[in-house]
Amino acid sequence: MLNYIHDIPTKLYFGEGQIRHLDEILRPFGTNVLLTYGGGSIKKIGLYDKVTDILNKGGYAVTELSGIEPNPRIESVEEGVRLCKENNIDVILAVGGGSTIDCSKAIATGVYYEGDDLWQMVASRHGVLKALPLVDILTLSATGSEYDGGGVITNLKTNEKLGNMYTYPSASICDPTYTYSVSKYQTAAGTADIMSHIFEGYFSRTEDSELSDSIAEGVLKTAIKYLPVALEQPDNYTARANLMAVSSVACSGIPEYGKQGTGWPCHAMEHELSAYYDITHGVGLAILTPRWMRLILKKDPSCAWRFVRFAKNVWGLEGDDDQALAQAAIEALERFFKEAGIPMNLTELKIDEEHFEEMAAHANSGGYLKDAFVPLTNEDIVEIYKACL
Amino acid sequence: MLNYIHDIPTKLYFGEGQIRHLDEILRPFGTNVLLTYGGGSIKKIGLYDKVTDILNKGGYAVTELSGIEPNPRIESVEEGVRLCKENNIDVILAVGGGSTIDCSKAIATGVYYEGDDLWQMVASRHGVLKALPLVDILTLSATGSEYDGGGVITNLKTNEKLGNMYTYPSASICDPTYTYSVSKYQTAAGTADIMSHIFEGYFSRTEDSELSDSIAEGVLKTAIKYLPVALEQPDNYTARANLMAVSSVACSGIPEYGKQGTGWPCHAMEHELSAYYDITHGVGLAILTPRWMRLILKKDPSCAWRFVRFAKNVWGLEGDDDQALAQAAIEALERFFKEAGIPMNLTELKIDEEHFEEMAAHANSGGYLKDAFVPLTNEDIVEIYKACL
Repeated sequence: MLNYIHDIPTKLYFGEGQIRHLDEILRPFGTNVLLTYGGGSIKKIGLYDKVTDILNKGGYAVTELSGIEPNPRIESVEEGVRLCKENNIDVILAVGGGSTIDCSKAIATGVYYEGDDLWQMVASRHGVLKALPLVDILTLSATGSEYDGGGVITNLKTNEKLGNMYTYPSASICDPTYTYSVSKYQTAAGTADIMSHIFEGYFSRTEDSELSDSIAEGVLKTAIKYLPVALEQPDNYTARANLMAVSSVACSGIPEYGKQGTGWPCHAMEHELSAYYDITHGVGLAILTPRWMRLILKKDPSCAWRFVRFAKNVWGLEGDDDQALAQAAIEALERFFKEAGIPMNLTELKIDEEHFEEMAAHANSGGYLKDAFVPLTNEDIVEIYKACL
Repeated sequence: MLNYIHDIPTKLYFGEGQIRHLDEILRPFGTNVLLTYGGGSIKKIGLYDKVTDILNKGGYAVTELSGIEPNPRIESVEEGVRLCKENNIDVILAVGGGSTIDCSKAIATGVYYEGDDLWQMVASRHGVLKALPLVDILTLSATGSEYDGGGVITNLKTNEKLGNMYTYPSASICDPTYTYSVSKYQTAAGTADIMSHIFEGYFSRTEDSELSDSIAEGVLKTAIKYLPVALEQPDNYTARANLMAVSSVACSGIPEYGKQGTGWPCHAMEHELSAYYDITHGVGLAILTPRWMRLILKKDPSCAWRFVRFAKNVWGLEGDDDQALAQAAIEALERFFKEAGIPMNLTELKIDEEHFEEMAAHANSGGYLKDAFVPLTNEDIVEIYKACL
């Protein structure tokens, strides 16, 4: 068990109706609010009206940044920073899913960035930075951005999609009813994202961090139990609530406490897919994950012990043959994604092997994937991409 | 799944050698430190010297309050408050287990208490209060006081042992090596305390809070796996680290998120035992828990569903007969405590039934046990006490 520091300052308001706390949350920060959101789904579900009503009654001065993209772009960050500076913004209120929150994090820190080029802030390695206070209202259970300090920003000019640390939300309002209208496709993709956040830490060389592993398995079992319910009954509160609760924990770092880092191989590979083809992040992860698992198991069969634990504790599988058990767990996962309606190959997404070599080189450029549970070479990554066709 | 607010401000420094952060943790609060500790075990393990060395080198002015009791008493709180006021203390540094930390929490808030009688502060219901900053270095995996806002203070004059909310530690240094010298008896008792914190929330009427239940089961499985290892090999880092990690989570409230409150029946009953007979808290809990489980299962056999989950997910038991499975899980728990060397009846502790009626009345006086998983009358509580003889 390795050392760790637990330090997440975000206050989570979980459950139906928690928006009633919005005014008391924002008030200490000031009254000049930048309200950020995406393509307008928050208007369809009436949340936009509810939020602006609270802000108007509270006497807040509101500046809006809307249209933040599903893979949020550097141009939106630039625009947000400009608006904050022009309007002397005190606090950012992000209403949406991970993309809106990620973009808002980069804006919150970008306000204090001293360089000329915000893409440099995104692209250079740094930890949490000085930032404007950020409050969010979550509308999609997926990225965990409501409970971590990171964000992912895309530059379509350079085909780059880069994760970095920015700032933690001061508070996150997590009301499961705001996810009732999320499409089956996005619900499934979001759950695949949640599960991938777990896989990235669960498949690590550290064997003796029981609490983290138990939490990881709890997140996976919860997702596996409730995704089918949410797909069948979009307004099932229990299902939506459980998916939302695990979303926050999955990407928090908590399920990795005490464990050796892995470089998050599936995320590294997926970010290339999204950067080149602008696909839904969770779908890319769902496609990649079983193929990555099969490759590492083939490359290093001695890593089966971890898959055996996954098979037993998450899927309830039993058996004496470790390799067979490992394969059965991977098949169960692939079947689960398929039954949730996720297109399970890149060909369906009109992606071919044209860029695989350069994507692999870039995914591996930081050298992080040498630290993965099973280290990955560029050739391995190309092989994984090809297995996804 | 019920609403909840997650708001734990404590920064946890987990792992061997994290004391190297002590100076940077204390520095922002000021240089007048009240150092609190218990009976001197921190001197035996060299921790006292290590701490005072850091404080001296850092130029801190140190006032000491030592001799804090295993069930910390109101007199120690009064003395601590007096020392804080006299010496213009900026920050309290508690070095010890839950008793030292609990007492230090009450001191931290007592400094700002405006009444004359600190026992009134302890005895009246309140939430977190204004407090001096509190930092702790944990030396016993048990109460979880390093990661919650509560504390339990005893008044031997009135035979009362009362829990209340005071303040969260600003930071907790959790170094498992400081628990290497903890006796087998205290290691087992501490683990029983950890497990009881879970049982108090796990046995609730709420069925649909999967993440919380998974975390609860993870804590229990971790404790069950590593207590025997720690008893066998007191300096096994993995075992001590896992027990310490689950200690913090178990009492944090997290395993109860989204679940209906239960009034913590075993703690209510045990506090009477400790108040009347000053016994080790975890031992009292270990004795009470299986008897409480058997009584509620007899009183309301329909509650077996929860024991079935406990049997399967924690003990790995299987079977079709719910009642038999529930009984088997309770037996497994009792055997586990017994094998850990805990005296499993009150007679061994020289406790007889003399005060059972008044203890039961007092345990139930707040009416909290009417909200328990299976509501408890005073007669039920007396029956549980008697079953413990």
